[in-house]
Amino acid sequence: MKIGIIGLGRMGGNIARRLMRAGHEAVVFDREQKAIDALVADGAIAASGIEDMKGKLDSPAIFWSMLPAGDITEQTVTAIAEVCGEGDIVIDGGNSFYKDDVRRAKALAEKGIRYIDVGTSGGVWGLERGYCMMIGGDKDAVDHVDPMFAALAPGLGTIPRTPGRPEGDDARAEQGYIHAGPAGAGHFVKMVHNGIEYGLMQAYAEGFDILKGKSSDKLVEEERFDLNLTDIAEVWRRGSVISSWLLDLSASALAKDMQLEAFSGNVADSGEGQWTIDAAMEEKVPANVLTAALFARYRSRVDHTFGDKLLSAMRYGFGGHVEIPQ
Amino acid sequence: MKIGIIGLGRMGGNIARRLMRAGHEAVVFDREQKAIDALVADGAIAASGIEDMKGKLDSPAIFWSMLPAGDITEQTVTAIAEVCGEGDIVIDGGNSFYKDDVRRAKALAEKGIRYIDVGTSGGVWGLERGYCMMIGGDKDAVDHVDPMFAALAPGLGTIPRTPGRPEGDDARAEQGYIHAGPAGAGHFVKMVHNGIEYGLMQAYAEGFDILKGKSSDKLVEEERFDLNLTDIAEVWRRGSVISSWLLDLSASALAKDMQLEAFSGNVADSGEGQWTIDAAMEEKVPANVLTAALFARYRSRVDHTFGDKLLSAMRYGFGGHVEIPQ
Amino acid sequence: MKIGIIGLGRMGGNIARRLMRAGHEAVVFDREQKAIDALVADGAIAASGIEDMKGKLDSPAIFWSMLPAGDITEQTVTAIAEVCGEGDIVIDGGNSFYKDDVRRAKALAEKGIRYIDVGTSGGVWGLERGYCMMIGGDKDAVDHVDPMFAALAPGLGTIPRTPGRPEGDDARAEQGYIHAGPAGAGHFVKMVHNGIEYGLMQAYAEGFDILKGKSSDKLVEEERFDLNLTDIAEVWRRGSVISSWLLDLSASALAKDMQLEAFSGNVADSGEGQWTIDAAMEEKVPANVLTAALFARYRSRVDHTFGDKLLSAMRYGFGGHVEIPQ
Amino acid sequence: MKIGIIGLGRMGGNIARRLMRAGHEAVVFDREQKAIDALVADGAIAASGIEDMKGKLDSPAIFWSMLPAGDITEQTVTAIAEVCGEGDIVIDGGNSFYKDDVRRAKALAEKGIRYIDVGTSGGVWGLERGYCMMIGGDKDAVDHVDPMFAALAPGLGTIPRTPGRPEGDDARAEQGYIHAGPAGAGHFVKMVHNGIEYGLMQAYAEGFDILKGKSSDKLVEEERFDLNLTDIAEVWRRGSVISSWLLDLSASALAKDMQLEAFSGNVADSGEGQWTIDAAMEEKVPANVLTAALFARYRSRVDHTFGDKLLSAMRYGFGGHVEIPQ
Repeated sequence: MKIGIIGLGRMGGNIARRLMRAGHEAVVFDREQKAIDALVADGAIAASGIEDMKGKLDSPAIFWSMLPAGDITEQTVTAIAEVCGEGDIVIDGGNSFYKDDVRRAKALAEKGIRYIDVGTSGGVWGLERGYCMMIGGDKDAVDHVDPMFAALAPGLGTIPRTPGRPEGDDARAEQGYIHAGPAGAGHFVKMVHNGIEYGLMQAYAEGFDILKGKSSDKLVEEERFDLNLTDIAEVWRRGSVISSWLLDLSASALAKDMQLEAFSGNVADSGEGQWTIDAAMEEKVPANVLTAALFARYRSRVDHTFGDKLLSAMRYGFGGHVEIPQ
Repeated sequence: MKIGIIGLGRMGGNIARRLMRAGHEAVVFDREQKAIDALVADGAIAASGIEDMKGKLDSPAIFWSMLPAGDITEQTVTAIAEVCGEGDIVIDGGNSFYKDDVRRAKALAEKGIRYIDVGTSGGVWGLERGYCMMIGGDKDAVDHVDPMFAALAPGLGTIPRTPGRPEGDDARAEQGYIHAGPAGAGHFVKMVHNGIEYGLMQAYAEGFDILKGKSSDKLVEEERFDLNLTDIAEVWRRGSVISSWLLDLSASALAKDMQLEAFSGNVADSGEGQWTIDAAMEEKVPANVLTAALFARYRSRVDHTFGDKLLSAMRYGFGGHVEIPQ
Repeated sequence: MKIGIIGLGRMGGNIARRLMRAGHEAVVFDREQKAIDALVADGAIAASGIEDMKGKLDSPAIFWSMLPAGDITEQTVTAIAEVCGEGDIVIDGGNSFYKDDVRRAKALAEKGIRYIDVGTSGGVWGLERGYCMMIGGDKDAVDHVDPMFAALAPGLGTIPRTPGRPEGDDARAEQGYIHAGPAGAGHFVKMVHNGIEYGLMQAYAEGFDILKGKSSDKLVEEERFDLNLTDIAEVWRRGSVISSWLLDLSASALAKDMQLEAFSGNVADSGEGQWTIDAAMEEKVPANVLTAALFARYRSRVDHTFGDKLLSAMRYGFGGHVEIPQ
Repeated sequence: MKIGIIGLGRMGGNIARRLMRAGHEAVVFDREQKAIDALVADGAIAASGIEDMKGKLDSPAIFWSMLPAGDITEQTVTAIAEVCGEGDIVIDGGNSFYKDDVRRAKALAEKGIRYIDVGTSGGVWGLERGYCMMIGGDKDAVDHVDPMFAALAPGLGTIPRTPGRPEGDDARAEQGYIHAGPAGAGHFVKMVHNGIEYGLMQAYAEGFDILKGKSSDKLVEEERFDLNLTDIAEVWRRGSVISSWLLDLSASALAKDMQLEAFSGNVADSGEGQWTIDAAMEEKVPANVLTAALFARYRSRVDHTFGDKLLSAMRYGFGGHVEIPQ
């Protein structure tokens, strides 16, 4: 198939490459000419803009926008819609808020344009490992671009089949992509995926914090263990209940430097963690772990909260406890 | 009554004073001669040590140890027990762990010594307002020293009676002290009191953080409110559902400086918050709020956790996200 | 002043009564004729609808909508706006989302109508104690209706002045009402108030849970205390650091029945707890306690979460642990 | 080597089998004769008790106690110590509290007996996959039984080596076992492992709860997605950031029944989750996620907390809200 890809950053560029490796054609555009040139060197067709891209695609045209969530995606989808007509397909592969997908799909449907949202996991490893994709949109559109999704997905690979999985179940899930539901469903599932990701990461973070604390010279010597965090991460990869890809990454980082001194610990959060909590609240579902994980990131980015100071002030008020800056 | 008081810090000194104001006699000792002198100036009898104190008390002797929890209290109670005999009374008014009380009471009972544990709330305000006391120990011992507790307690004062409180209920509760149960029960109730205190404080802290955040110039102007936190604290004291003494203290601190710049925000925790969570876990009672409040204090005292760095490392591992120290 | 009040429920009816007691006139309307009749019996002027009400008010007309948040408030404000003109004042005293206030104020301003949002705390006790009010809107409008707010507020009463509060500060805060900022600011502050309220309530709830658990016969006898929760709540009201109005209410409920058997424990939440967390996330402010308090309410209303079952399923998967329904 | 194994339950029996498959000899004992018979059928040597077992072992004798934590392990270790002498080795492979290990090792060392604690992960899958082991004890003892650990461990298998792991690092970690430190260190690391396990599990549980809630007919139709949880779990196994063994197990459970109706959702917790929080508090390390995960399990086992009822009572007190049992 021929796919027009807008946004050639870490994700978009490699998606184009993986598609081309599978025999698909990629027409590419980015605001940075360098990014376009790099893809052209790998076999892509350059486009000078969205209108030019449209001219270079087949009919129905297939556009894949791979941009950060927010205004830029909104503008790009709008711009694509302007050059599209009946039957064309617009795919948003970024991290859009799923309610934006619902709205956009509705608006584009009025012009006969088919909108697909794709949540993509796999990060910088996707080019080699393939991308795990959660897809929302109308069935006919999703089916139309299925060859493309099949090429991007990891495929069965060496991961064992799930015991007990019935033969009749959707085979795409085992290839690493699913059609989750109508427009918005793809990004919704990806959003929850990221919410879980935050929770998993924080669970490891707290566990290693406790191991680290036990090795700390703040404890008296009899209570201390001098633990090798690198070896602990390694051994847990091998037969333990908590083995995971995130643990693999932790083990690798700790193998390089057990103090992790290259990392600031100012941990960013994308919108998806927050949206997951929003969704939980809309459904009245308690999500203490996912929320605590999100808040740990907020907290990692400030020195002291104002609330901390208020605590100090109250303690001074009732107990005369003095907690003043040195 | 005549009471021997060991430990003349912020709490012990004022307890002696309030007892003397009510006509009781205080024999006092402290490691700091200055502290003894100050009490003697207020009418107390000086003791040069525990043995000397014993000689200056009536029979049965009543000792009140008012020291920080931990080794020093343990040593003092042991030392008192050595000079005591059948029928004498040893009171621990510090913040001891209630299981230590159970153990001590048992050990002292073998020599006929009666042990009482008193959890005391009221902080630096107790001298004027009276002390709220939660008492554990055998009934006969607690009854014997009742006149002393009655003098220390706030009394009915201006606080309205609780609607619906039956006439037959223990009148002491309305005077501000209770006999909570056998040895340990007093400190157990005080421990939970402090656990709740942490939760309440953190609830206000987070609320004011959100108000502060809404006034922050990190928000775009249309989304910002320039809120006067001092007036908000003040108005909530008057007729709102969240009025409390801790809010009174917050209002006072904010009235002096709305930025609370005098406070570091490195918030200490005594053992009681931690013991409360221990008790919750022993009972298998979920206590998410009390625990989050405790952990917020731990977090206030570190710059970055090691866990934060591990999060950064994982994010770099899967997404190439760079979170390095500047 | 003459005020038109729409919505004569628990809150609206008593607001009308308190205004009339202070010499103001109330023109009243409710969908329930009985509610109108009751107010007329107390001296109010009946209106048959919004248009009729407008005719019975002075110029500028002052409308006070006191309805639950959501569609009904939106419709009512729209209906009022239709009969209003330049300079008239529309007050929303319900629990509206503050962003709705911002939007409404803007829309109404185009017709010269002045919109005020009032967050009101005090519950069923407001008629006697007065209402604590947090007000948003333009200064001239808020000033115009000041006599009405002054009548509704608790006034100085017996609550002591805050030590350290400067003389020059807004005196209204000490009377129990504040002008918090432009439209939306009133409901924003009230929203955070409710968020804090949830946190405070849950802190007490967990504390009493731990006291209750310690009295449980699930513990072996030596580890158990037979605690009198009624007396504990009572004594904490008197001189302790955690005294508050919510504790007063708890003491009263426990005095009536220490088992609280009349209460289901299916705890509702209004929108404001959720909006507070939304606001925290928008500001990137960690709010672990307020969130845990909200989630505890969600959790109180379900028997088992699906997540609980998944935990059981995983435990069965790795450990052969059997957690099946009996 | 020849190893005496006491406790032939799910774990102990399979450990004996895996050792025998590797050419080691197992002398076995259990309170259930049936369990002994089953092992003898697989090639083990029966012992009629600990003394008999000692007679059938080489010198130094190697005992492996594989019993649930608590009194039974304590009694067994004591009984073994009574028949042991200088140089013999006692291994506790159960889930003991690490502070018990420290104490036991000290006591046994006085008689020249060498104590080793082994935290074992792998559950019912260990016989085939091998056991991930975290080992504490003196170097000479651990080295002596190394062939046994090597046989029990998974070995390198198909799990890729960690990129960046230096050549010089302890090779045992890559085989799936580590010598973590002195006595207690093994169970300490295993304890934290289980704490993390709880956190990971709860992160998935909450995520699937949110997916489930989105499919609920409590939502209005436009806001609902009819999500296939089985396929979602499956697709996340393949190339996503959150792939893990626990997810594999979830996918398998959901493949068998997407409603998980066979599971009660009354989720048990072993002591290790609780001890992990204890350790965090001793180190003053915030562990919000691990604690929330533990508390979710407590909460899953009660219908309503007493605290829930107190919330209802307060709500009735200030707002007249009625939350009574139907």
